[in-house]
Amino acid sequence: MNILRVGVITVSDRAAQGIYEDLGGPALVTAVRARGWEVVAEAVVPDEKDRIQTCIRSFVRQGCGLILTTGGTGIALRDVTPEAIRAIARVELPGFGEVMRAESMKLTPNAILSRSLAALVDGALVIALPGKPQGAVDCLGFVAGAIPHAVKIAADVPDSC
Amino acid sequence: MNILRVGVITVSDRAAQGIYEDLGGPALVTAVRARGWEVVAEAVVPDEKDRIQTCIRSFVRQGCGLILTTGGTGIALRDVTPEAIRAIARVELPGFGEVMRAESMKLTPNAILSRSLAALVDGALVIALPGKPQGAVDCLGFVAGAIPHAVKIAADVPDSC
Amino acid sequence: MNILRVGVITVSDRAAQGIYEDLGGPALVTAVRARGWEVVAEAVVPDEKDRIQTCIRSFVRQGCGLILTTGGTGIALRDVTPEAIRAIARVELPGFGEVMRAESMKLTPNAILSRSLAALVDGALVIALPGKPQGAVDCLGFVAGAIPHAVKIAADVPDSC
Repeated sequence: MNILRVGVITVSDRAAQGIYEDLGGPALVTAVRARGWEVVAEAVVPDEKDRIQTCIRSFVRQGCGLILTTGGTGIALRDVTPEAIRAIARVELPGFGEVMRAESMKLTPNAILSRSLAALVDGALVIALPGKPQGAVDCLGFVAGAIPHAVKIAADVPDSC
Repeated sequence: MNILRVGVITVSDRAAQGIYEDLGGPALVTAVRARGWEVVAEAVVPDEKDRIQTCIRSFVRQGCGLILTTGGTGIALRDVTPEAIRAIARVELPGFGEVMRAESMKLTPNAILSRSLAALVDGALVIALPGKPQGAVDCLGFVAGAIPHAVKIAADVPDSC
Repeated sequence: MNILRVGVITVSDRAAQGIYEDLGGPALVTAVRARGWEVVAEAVVPDEKDRIQTCIRSFVRQGCGLILTTGGTGIALRDVTPEAIRAIARVELPGFGEVMRAESMKLTPNAILSRSLAALVDGALVIALPGKPQGAVDCLGFVAGAIPHAVKIAADVPDSC
């Protein structure tokens, strides 16, 4: 069994500018490793669609089968992570957003505002998690069981395409 | 703490023509006031996209941070409220539709047909509720807890934009 | 009360090529008849958008008020049933996908990957079910209660339109 290769992207204007420390990314890295998966790439990018998209595609080329983003899934004007991912995705997997919201709402009613989602980009599974470190780790936990199977199917590119 | 300013729009061809009395709007007005929120605008419009959109935008300009529509969320040919809202929305908040359907289905199986939703339009939170008065009031109740926070974030327009 | 007229479409490259026997279609036919509904059309088509769309529209013209597809709702490259249906649908009914996923996940965690959905096409209700026979029959069961009412409303075409 191959070890799952994971990229972690923190999407945050303030973290990218160094105004405050990125906590979501490190929290996810720890959670990923605790599952026995390998973190092969990490980045902090501002809340800008093209920067998010470029980073995701770069991580896919670096061999990430799973890319986790944290941040930018809320409803503020600068929250564009869902739009960035959708614009380059082959398909969206609505079940991930549904489960992450339903489970998170049991912990905090404001999770109803979350636009967390999962989609396939260039043969990798991309999951957009909330920006708060605990929320990101919790949401990863809610969907982790289906991730290895999803990554395997997502990567199954036919001979000619 | 500012009082939440609310607009209520009944979307119904027959109510707009005076064929029958609008019951959904008054039921929502009562429910809104019972929460301590202020109803600052009310209207009845036919099931026509541009009329719905014009009314929503007018209510935003009148200072509504929350706009509730009732009607037009079903699957009949004239039910166009979701399409009207989506076409002018910056983002949709899928959690609202998911919660309203999941909770309504506990009361009536046909709620699975509902296309209720929430979205942000011009800095206001717009929630499309069912046409039946009790269904509209029930659905408002299912999501009311997150509304004040959502309205506050939705209105948070930056200096230049 | 009119008997519900149903079309069943198996979407599968391999079944269409005769590489293996179509089991999902027959399983659905049995489940449909067990509900007292009538199967008036059956087909096996490859995972190609235009073939799926042509078959759905042909079944509508043959008088099907409900069209069930099985297969092509996953995330493999050839899984295009959701896209085929959405491209010709008047409206999507998000509650069906939500319920089918939520209930299926109680049986198998990988159901989170399902892109099952329901939509209205040319006045008929189209439901895209999973490819596995048991999954298709289970998902039909999860939403069957609302189907007769949905089909009736979907078919309610006004005089001029």
